[in-house]
Amino acid sequence: MQSYNEYLSLVNQAIAAINYPPTPANLYAPIAYTMSLGGKRLRPVLTLMSCEAMGGTAAQAIDAAVGLELFHNFTLLHDDVMDRADVRRGQPTVHRRWNDNVAILSGDAMLTLATQHIARVSLKHLAQAVSLFNRTAIEIYEGQQLDMDFETRNDVTVEDYLEMIRLKTSVLLGCACRMGGLLANASAADCDALYDMGVNLGLAFQLQDDALDVWGDPATFGKEIGGDIVNNKKTFLLINALQRAQGEEARELRLWITAPQAPSECKVPALTKLYERLNLRTLSDEAIARYNALALAALARTTMPAPAREAFATLITSLTGRRA
Amino acid sequence: MQSYNEYLSLVNQAIAAINYPPTPANLYAPIAYTMSLGGKRLRPVLTLMSCEAMGGTAAQAIDAAVGLELFHNFTLLHDDVMDRADVRRGQPTVHRRWNDNVAILSGDAMLTLATQHIARVSLKHLAQAVSLFNRTAIEIYEGQQLDMDFETRNDVTVEDYLEMIRLKTSVLLGCACRMGGLLANASAADCDALYDMGVNLGLAFQLQDDALDVWGDPATFGKEIGGDIVNNKKTFLLINALQRAQGEEARELRLWITAPQAPSECKVPALTKLYERLNLRTLSDEAIARYNALALAALARTTMPAPAREAFATLITSLTGRRA
Repeated sequence: MQSYNEYLSLVNQAIAAINYPPTPANLYAPIAYTMSLGGKRLRPVLTLMSCEAMGGTAAQAIDAAVGLELFHNFTLLHDDVMDRADVRRGQPTVHRRWNDNVAILSGDAMLTLATQHIARVSLKHLAQAVSLFNRTAIEIYEGQQLDMDFETRNDVTVEDYLEMIRLKTSVLLGCACRMGGLLANASAADCDALYDMGVNLGLAFQLQDDALDVWGDPATFGKEIGGDIVNNKKTFLLINALQRAQGEEARELRLWITAPQAPSECKVPALTKLYERLNLRTLSDEAIARYNALALAALARTTMPAPAREAFATLITSLTGRRA
Repeated sequence: MQSYNEYLSLVNQAIAAINYPPTPANLYAPIAYTMSLGGKRLRPVLTLMSCEAMGGTAAQAIDAAVGLELFHNFTLLHDDVMDRADVRRGQPTVHRRWNDNVAILSGDAMLTLATQHIARVSLKHLAQAVSLFNRTAIEIYEGQQLDMDFETRNDVTVEDYLEMIRLKTSVLLGCACRMGGLLANASAADCDALYDMGVNLGLAFQLQDDALDVWGDPATFGKEIGGDIVNNKKTFLLINALQRAQGEEARELRLWITAPQAPSECKVPALTKLYERLNLRTLSDEAIARYNALALAALARTTMPAPAREAFATLITSLTGRRA
């Protein structure tokens, strides 16, 4: 096993080596731009780690790993158009730097480029790898559609929310881990355990993201603190707040989320305090700890050797206890 | 060999049998809607015909055929968003009936559904089928980007235009024919000839489409006559007109294409007459005949039996001599 940074470096080298045709520039420059913005590269690193942990080599998995990162960035690109987001990783989003049409079409091309990378796996694994990838992609679109549907629904339960983030965020982490196992010829039981590990890590990761929007360190979070609060985004916190607030607290919550253009410098601290009065920070920490434990339990079900298991356990704990 | 209508019926049955999940409705209903609008189903019919012509069965090729039709309709769906088109096959486009976000996301899902259908081919053909499909998809995005780039370019040559329509339209017909051959285990030479036949058919088909926009029968064309003229769309006709018009005719042409909001009931007949004075109807007919002949020559290079060759020749001639 190598360190996270060593896997990250392999991924970044492979991404830097992608050879985009020079023309049409408006098709390929936005893809190169998006892929150059960096990020944790968590999905491809999980694929490489899972492959090596199950006895394969990083080289066997690098194309599929890059394919998953291309896919992930394609979803961000199209989501940014749909959400009218202006900034991604501190830089203008593609539809802001170019325009919507360029963002739509270069996103489409990224999805096909992703599939091309996945299809470079050895013939022995091709059918399963392509099938896993396509099934995961469909689930992610379902998750994104549910997320958009939630914006206009007033009856979203915590269970609905958890199912949405399972689809939108977590299954790709599960896919990344399973893909590594598959390419290393791991058993079906190992592949299933790797998938469960990834999905539960993804759930913990997203709940952590929701919490960081409220209690994160502005210096390291990368996005503005309180963005979800400003937009009344139905996160784990808001949905639980709507369920738990009674009497005066319920009235205060309704006031803030129905006030048109409440100044964010008032709304964010007010709702943060309300969330704390409702004990949501503890509730959130407990949920994160629960999924973290499920991810570790799935890890324990794999037959990977102890040093690899150790490396995954460290990664899971660091990701779900992150402050940025 | 079966008749076009028999292949069409097989395709429509397979499309009607696609089992979309009931939820999220905003993801799947637009896909079912798009696929229910009908059309010639030319691409899947070409795949089935090519497969049977080369000794295979329609059953071997039906999944890939439906995959290509899903892909084609995905490109139309996203193109309609990019072009702000309101009507497709006489019905509201998805982004008009729902909204842009629904159109973007359900289009993404259609692309993955298309890939899933392609990936259902037998394992023996999987690598080649997926590779052919992905390569073709990338070329089509390149063609669409060039088409959008042309809108703001004033130096588009006839050669540029032909390369754009080769990418945007023709390679998918080539891919459809080659896919059928591939699934029937045809030789590489046969597959190449099938591909060339499809590409040249596609070029003739698109040039015919450009001509029908001007000289088509409004009762059968499906779209409004003169749409390209109204929008100054750089078609084979306008590009040739810009090259050929001299003196008074050049001034008249410039006047019409620079006049802001020229009434279409004046602009369309005026430019139609100008195109005729410049002999563009003949030029267009000659170009269509040339690609028609190239398609027939490629057909002649295949080793398919005479009845199949006959069926293709009839189809090619009818498609490139169509009046609607």
